[in-house]
Amino acid sequence: MQRTSRYALMIASLGLLAAPPVSAFDGIVEKQRFRLENFTTQGGETIPQVDVGWESYGELNDARDNVILITHFFSGTSHAAGRYSDEDALPGYWDAIIGPGKALDTDRFYIIASDTLVNLNAHDPNVVTTGPATLNPETGEPWGMDFPVVGIRDFVEVQRALLESQGIESLYAVMGASMGALQAIEWASVYPERVERLIPVIGSGATDPWLLATLGTWAAPIRLDERWNEGDYYDAEPPLAGLKEALKLVTLNANHWRWANRTFDRAWADETRDPAQELDARYAIEQALDELAAARAEVADANHLLYLVRANQSFIAGGGDTYQEGLARIEAPTLMLYSERDLVFSSEGVRRTAQLIREAGNEVTLEPLRGDRGHLDGVLAIEQASDTLRAFLE
Amino acid sequence: MQRTSRYALMIASLGLLAAPPVSAFDGIVEKQRFRLENFTTQGGETIPQVDVGWESYGELNDARDNVILITHFFSGTSHAAGRYSDEDALPGYWDAIIGPGKALDTDRFYIIASDTLVNLNAHDPNVVTTGPATLNPETGEPWGMDFPVVGIRDFVEVQRALLESQGIESLYAVMGASMGALQAIEWASVYPERVERLIPVIGSGATDPWLLATLGTWAAPIRLDERWNEGDYYDAEPPLAGLKEALKLVTLNANHWRWANRTFDRAWADETRDPAQELDARYAIEQALDELAAARAEVADANHLLYLVRANQSFIAGGGDTYQEGLARIEAPTLMLYSERDLVFSSEGVRRTAQLIREAGNEVTLEPLRGDRGHLDGVLAIEQASDTLRAFLE
Repeated sequence: MQRTSRYALMIASLGLLAAPPVSAFDGIVEKQRFRLENFTTQGGETIPQVDVGWESYGELNDARDNVILITHFFSGTSHAAGRYSDEDALPGYWDAIIGPGKALDTDRFYIIASDTLVNLNAHDPNVVTTGPATLNPETGEPWGMDFPVVGIRDFVEVQRALLESQGIESLYAVMGASMGALQAIEWASVYPERVERLIPVIGSGATDPWLLATLGTWAAPIRLDERWNEGDYYDAEPPLAGLKEALKLVTLNANHWRWANRTFDRAWADETRDPAQELDARYAIEQALDELAAARAEVADANHLLYLVRANQSFIAGGGDTYQEGLARIEAPTLMLYSERDLVFSSEGVRRTAQLIREAGNEVTLEPLRGDRGHLDGVLAIEQASDTLRAFLE
Repeated sequence: MQRTSRYALMIASLGLLAAPPVSAFDGIVEKQRFRLENFTTQGGETIPQVDVGWESYGELNDARDNVILITHFFSGTSHAAGRYSDEDALPGYWDAIIGPGKALDTDRFYIIASDTLVNLNAHDPNVVTTGPATLNPETGEPWGMDFPVVGIRDFVEVQRALLESQGIESLYAVMGASMGALQAIEWASVYPERVERLIPVIGSGATDPWLLATLGTWAAPIRLDERWNEGDYYDAEPPLAGLKEALKLVTLNANHWRWANRTFDRAWADETRDPAQELDARYAIEQALDELAAARAEVADANHLLYLVRANQSFIAGGGDTYQEGLARIEAPTLMLYSERDLVFSSEGVRRTAQLIREAGNEVTLEPLRGDRGHLDGVLAIEQASDTLRAFLE
């Protein structure tokens, strides 16, 4: 409200004019739903009905050339900025850089974000996604493991349909963190003529062997939980114990030892139960991770996590045999933000990606993010890149 | 044999004299067993009978002042050097530095290593240990979760009894990697008058919060496996699936992304099964980790892993409230070897440990190990420290 002048308010309250907003985005967002019939995956399977949620910040201009697409990370959603109501404790994850006058200026850009297929948070009321937990309209039952295996390219194709439904043919920029970086890179590789600027954050041009293995360990606890039942649990108790352990690994891997060692000490979870005496007692950091994982598991779906693991594992820019090919197709000037402490997408992989895009004749700016959280600094400490982003978007 | 002169061989073969070995250690080792009755843990529980295996390389001199104790890592055993027979494919883990003329010269030192309590490889025929998988002589049944929770200090006390049984009162040096470093530090802190030189490798003076949490994730897959059955599985199928996942995490955490990305590519485990099409298909790196974990699980015990996790979590040098206290009690000149890429014991924690030992008036040499394996370079790439070790042991 600070950005709205008294004069504009008066006019609006009098209802005399359709008041043009002084800011295109006042911070309140509404989840929208996009439906797509008969979506055919890259694997050749057809999904009769795809629904995904989306939200937007700022307004689409008449030329439809002010669009920035934000693509979300593994455990993220389309809620990139703003609040659903004034009571929301926290805004969307990149609110620090999305808003009026911010680096991604909603007074200038139309910023749009959508939930991916097989979104992790399938049971979050603010998420709309399609995946194993969704009813298959042909059977009336949840898809379960009959849902086709999908990949990053499929996420991109759903986004393309969403954008086309709004008459949007090209993107001023596409920006995403982690799995969002994979989608952004895929956009620029597969549709080079539609992407004017590329901003991959904490991600690279292919999932490297380290990450293949790491992602595999995220899937394992779910498969170990007998309640998982080969993915068929929608009529019964879901495999929450396995899902929680999986989410704990996600949290830990996405962080860095500097964060853990600055945030926690060796305190016990319960001061009356010494872990050195009782095997079932825990340390405070374990309890904190357990509680965070339990809260996240409440809205997450175990099968969706397995499908997301695979979508991330199978990523190679452009979908060819080598990512050199895929990256060489990119034409957009590129800004890559990354962390030297990233334990998910290694700094080496990020640098190699930058080099390959550059070798294909492109301009690439590679900028490290500071912070103690490693990979997560690309989400939680993004504000430090505001000036860089602003300059890149000029 | 190269080091044995033709003359000595001739005498030995003639059986005319008890041939004094030209080298005190010819590379063939024999596992010995040490028994201790009524061992009382630091937690105040009594174990009626403790058996642990041990082996030695070189000969104890008459003054009994040439002893180097080697303490083993989490998944290690007392097999630090040599072979049990000429047919053994691999020697003990630190064979590169233990032997005649090597950095830890068996022509000069009597080097002794023992299996810890709750050793991971309880079912390895060359391991002798006491823990949940061992028969409780009072019940005739495996201890299971009735085995008392033990810590690094308990491991040290069993070693002290073993050494005393051989009339050894003081150590020329104590050296160990990872969990072995914790034991070495504990020795020097609790028995400063008995430890003349301290060599902690890839370890530090306390388990930091990051490692508390990481160790917790190693325990989780076992607890998720229904066959674990609250630790009561010795009459049934053991929780091998959970144990394998735990060991996979151990392997991955002890390595570094540089190793994974230089050793593997994005190949599929089975060239006819594309992971992008089949959720049950795997990548080659996943298969390699699965197979390694399966081989290790064959001789490992799931409950022992849980007890080892706790022994490592509860470690704080000297057992007091702060590790400053414990480290300040050390009097031995100290050589610390570590890796800047260590994702288990952070380089920051190692440096802080070195600083605290130094601040208490001690001489500390801190030397980084090169390599792409992170933590594991302390085991697999130790040979590079030969000259440093030799100089330190002069």
